[in-house]
This record gives sequence, C-alpha cells and structure tokens, in this order.
Amino acid sequence: MSQQAVVPKLVDVEAAALIVRQHAHLTPVVTSRLLDEKFGYQLFLKCENLQRAGAFKFRGAVHSISRLTPEQKLAGVITHSSGNHGAALALAGSIFGVSTTVVVPRTAPQVKKDAVIGYGANVVYCEPTVKSRESTVEKIQRETGAKFIPPFNYPDVIAGQGTAALELIEQVPDLDAIIAPVGGGGLISGTCIAASQRSVPIPVFAGEPANADDAFRSKQSGQLVTIDNPQTIADGLRTSLGSLTWPFVRDVVQQVITVTEQEIVDTTKFVWTRTKQIVEPSSAVAIAAVGKTEFPVEKDSRIGVIITGGNLDLDDLPW
Amino acid sequence: MSQQAVVPKLVDVEAAALIVRQHAHLTPVVTSRLLDEKFGYQLFLKCENLQRAGAFKFRGAVHSISRLTPEQKLAGVITHSSGNHGAALALAGSIFGVSTTVVVPRTAPQVKKDAVIGYGANVVYCEPTVKSRESTVEKIQRETGAKFIPPFNYPDVIAGQGTAALELIEQVPDLDAIIAPVGGGGLISGTCIAASQRSVPIPVFAGEPANADDAFRSKQSGQLVTIDNPQTIADGLRTSLGSLTWPFVRDVVQQVITVTEQEIVDTTKFVWTRTKQIVEPSSAVAIAAVGKTEFPVEKDSRIGVIITGGNLDLDDLPW
Repeated sequence: MSQQAVVPKLVDVEAAALIVRQHAHLTPVVTSRLLDEKFGYQLFLKCENLQRAGAFKFRGAVHSISRLTPEQKLAGVITHSSGNHGAALALAGSIFGVSTTVVVPRTAPQVKKDAVIGYGANVVYCEPTVKSRESTVEKIQRETGAKFIPPFNYPDVIAGQGTAALELIEQVPDLDAIIAPVGGGGLISGTCIAASQRSVPIPVFAGEPANADDAFRSKQSGQLVTIDNPQTIADGLRTSLGSLTWPFVRDVVQQVITVTEQEIVDTTKFVWTRTKQIVEPSSAVAIAAVGKTEFPVEKDSRIGVIITGGNLDLDDLPW
Repeated sequence: MSQQAVVPKLVDVEAAALIVRQHAHLTPVVTSRLLDEKFGYQLFLKCENLQRAGAFKFRGAVHSISRLTPEQKLAGVITHSSGNHGAALALAGSIFGVSTTVVVPRTAPQVKKDAVIGYGANVVYCEPTVKSRESTVEKIQRETGAKFIPPFNYPDVIAGQGTAALELIEQVPDLDAIIAPVGGGGLISGTCIAASQRSVPIPVFAGEPANADDAFRSKQSGQLVTIDNPQTIADGLRTSLGSLTWPFVRDVVQQVITVTEQEIVDTTKFVWTRTKQIVEPSSAVAIAAVGKTEFPVEKDSRIGVIITGGNLDLDDLPW
C-alpha cells in the first residue's frame, strides 16, 4: 500500500492526463460578458458539468481504476459517495469491466442515486454520517475483497482531478488565479498541484459554503477541523478535508472564502440564466466566492473557475 | 421596397455570415451519447442557446440592422415579438446605436420582457393577437418613422437565420439531414437555403407543436393555413408562417413532424438532464420530432438539430 501514501506531484497529474484524455471529454471553457460585468472579473468557466457522468469526478475515478492491478480489477471496487463520485466510479468501472459497489447515504439526491444505478453499479444504502458510511464500506470490503477507491483522500483520485486545472491552464493562457470549491478536497488539491508546481505558479483560491466551513476553519486555526453531516444546498461539499488534502489547503491554497446559502442559490440561478449551463449549487460556490469582498484578486483579472458538475434534481430546484 | 421582396439565396446567406460573424458567437455543436442512445441517431446540436441574447434570433436582427441606410438607422427600428426577436433586435440596435422599439404581447414570459428591457429597447405592450400587434406597430411607425423589422417575414432576417445552419454544416461534415423547429418560419427558411442550395443538398425537416400546427396543415393542404393565438408551451412557435417563409416549407422542407405538449416537456427535461444545456421548449420540439415514428430518416444517421434558444423563466418551469 506504500504507493497509495505518496503525495502526487505535477508529473503525476501530467501522467494522469494521458490516461484521462483517452476516456474523458476535453470540456470547453465558457465565458459570459454578463457574468463578467456582474462580478468585475474575466471569468473562464471550466465546464466539468459537461464531463462524462456530469462532473469532474470522472477524472479521478477513471484514473484510479486504470491503475489497478489485474487482480484488483477482477475483485472489483467499492466506494462511498453522496453521488457524483459514485456515478463516476460506476461509469469508469463499466469502461474497464470492473464490478463497482457504491455505498450511498439515504439522503443523497434521487437524481444522483439514479445515475449510480444507471451506470450499472451495485448500490448499498447507509446513514448520512461518516461512521455509517465507513462501517458499511468495511463490511462489504471484508465480504468481497473489493478495492476501496475513496472519493478524495487517495493519490490517484487527486492526480486525476488535477487534470481539469491542467487542461484549463492549457486552454486559457495567462490566468491570474484559479478558484475551485472545496469539499473533501480532492479537486482543490489536484488544482493546487497543477497550478502551483509550474515555472510561473498560478495562485489558487477555494470557495466553501459557510454552512460547511471545515476548510475555512482548518486554515484559520492551522489544524484540521472536521464537521459531521453539515447542512448545505451544495451537497457535493458536505464532506470534510482528509489527511492527504488538508496539507494542500494549509500550504498552497491562498485563501478559503465562504459564501452563504442565499449567495449559492442566487449565483446558481444567475449562472443558469446567463450562461445557459446547468451547474450544481456546489459549482456556484466558487463563482459566488469571487463576488465577495474577501476575494483579494485585483478587479478585471483573468480568473479560472472549475465548474464541478451539473447533476441535480430538476424537480427540486433550490429557488 | 423592391429589395425587400427578393427571396434570399445561398449567396445572400453567405454574405450575411460575413456580417453576422463580426458580432455573433460562433456557437458550439454539442453531442451526447445518452441522447443518441435514446433517439437512435447521431445528433449534433447547434447550440444557439449560447448565442448572444440567448437565441438564434440575434443573427437575423444584427444582419437586418447592419443593412439599413444611414437615414433608416437614424430613424430607428421597430418590431413585434413574443420575446427572442425583440431582445435580439434590442441588442443589435444597441451595437449599431439604433433606437429600437419592441411591441410585446402582455402574455409573453416575464424573462423575455426583462431581456428586451435589459438590452435598452423601448417596450410597448399589446394584446396577444396578430391584429393587435400589427395595429400597435403601425401606429408607432406612423408617429416615429421607425423602420419595421419583422420577426421572420423579411429577407434580411431569413438570410441571417440561415447562417446558423451554414455554420453547422461547416462544423459537422456529412450530415444526413437537418431539423429545426418551425414557428413563423424564418429559421426553417434560412436553413432550407443553407442546406438545399449546395452541390450536395442536405434534406431539411421541421418540428412543430401539434397545438400550433399551421405549417403541418399548410403543407398537407398545399395552401397557407394560419392559426391565431394557438396555445403551446413552445412559446417561440406560436406564430404562423408568412408569405415569404411558406414557399420554403411547401417546396424545400421534406416533412413537418408534429409533437405533443407532453413530448415537448419530457424532451426539454431530458435534454437538460443529459446535456446540461438550458434549452427552451421550442428547441426541444425539433429533438422530440426526431423521436417520432413519422421521422423517416434511417436510424444511426447523422442529424443536425438547430437548438433555437435558452431563454425561459426559471421560476416557472414546465414540469
């Protein structure tokens, strides 16, 4: 297991990109004059809502499964996920012919449960707590010998997620900063690697719901703070940082900017109206953060924003 | 006025493209495996929901205003529109510094009224009938001397709308057919010109709401049938064909395929879920038509679909 403990570097993200691009979409970068006018920046939206399975999570999932040994592939994989990682792993598993089990909290949005099932994974329900998730995963792992692919605290997942920022940096030269939302921290960590380990580093910022502000509090206190089952409309960001992702937030992320639930909802709707892109509330967190006075980057700068996904229940919109 | 009576040809659409591309977005073509699986075709969605002002209408509007004389530009323009053409003309007017008045039916969606106002046009309300619209326009025209730019029955508008199909044909080689929704017929007529007057013509089909099936009935009977104020969720398709657009439907369009209100709503939602693109119900009409047994093109063929726009009221979704 020593391979799993190694913190990925830029070379790992670049290697991941060679695999990811064989299976994932090269997602477009969308701009909008009206968005720029409202926020006072040149915003470049890296549209992972247009990624396969509807979220950036496919990158880490397909990368992780591609690196399993033949024996591991035969035994199958298991994970827990509020939805996007589960759907992504299910799709990646189906591509590589790897049996996939996803432990899903009962409270996850129906549309995300349906996606996991739709991609052919076995779904097992648990309670919406860290403890219930982990015990359920361990039980099935013992029974089946399936390899656990965590949603974020896992080097191959982090390296895979970093390929989104890597692409963005290639697609849009001269970015002054990149911002992504932070939940468990797989995306922000991969983004940190892709953006900071360059000859000309690009500053990385994180947006976080004020209602699930473990990363903000961790960075303020200098110690990893976790929050169990926080309530926010940004359902992809309810998880807390892990042991591998916290150091990136602590040492590389310039600042974590928190946004209110109302700001998340308003920004989601504004982005839908102006860009015609369906983005999850979790994605709007990063854009809303750019609009806060706490965001320290000079106005009119070129800001890359990772749009995380577009999976949400159209029968239960937050406005 | 003799110039206005000339039916546009491919050379006119090509000339329009030179002007349109200076001001409009070159909109992307979006594909989706899951969409293709459902409908049994390779669908290429020409995303005019990502056009400026959120709809293909900007093409015809900006082309028409660009061709006015200096005196006409000074006197301003006027139109009537349920929304998208009005917003498009307002934006095009603002680009050329031409004062724009838009006569809007009181029943138009609020989001479309807001867009017209937001782009700086003068808005005048009328009743939702052809008669009320026309009398209101004539009254203001007499008072101000503004040039009337009709929403579809106008050569420069038709030539402008045809640039969407022209681009699509350049972006996606070897299309087996193109389908677009039909309302007043500006888009379908421009599409006919772009697709049929080529060395290798591409067959053109039209989708239409069964609740507003004037084009279907006209084509069946061989005579122009109009319907006053039909009720359909596809609010962009409530208008009937005009004298300039009817001949294209009669002579060039292979077939008009009608779809029910339920099919329109289901398809809109399916497209949102699968492509993460916000498209109007009017756009879903063309996709839903492809799914009907009446659509005669061989399965797995390459079908270009003009996605007309993405402007709708997010507080009043049709599901």
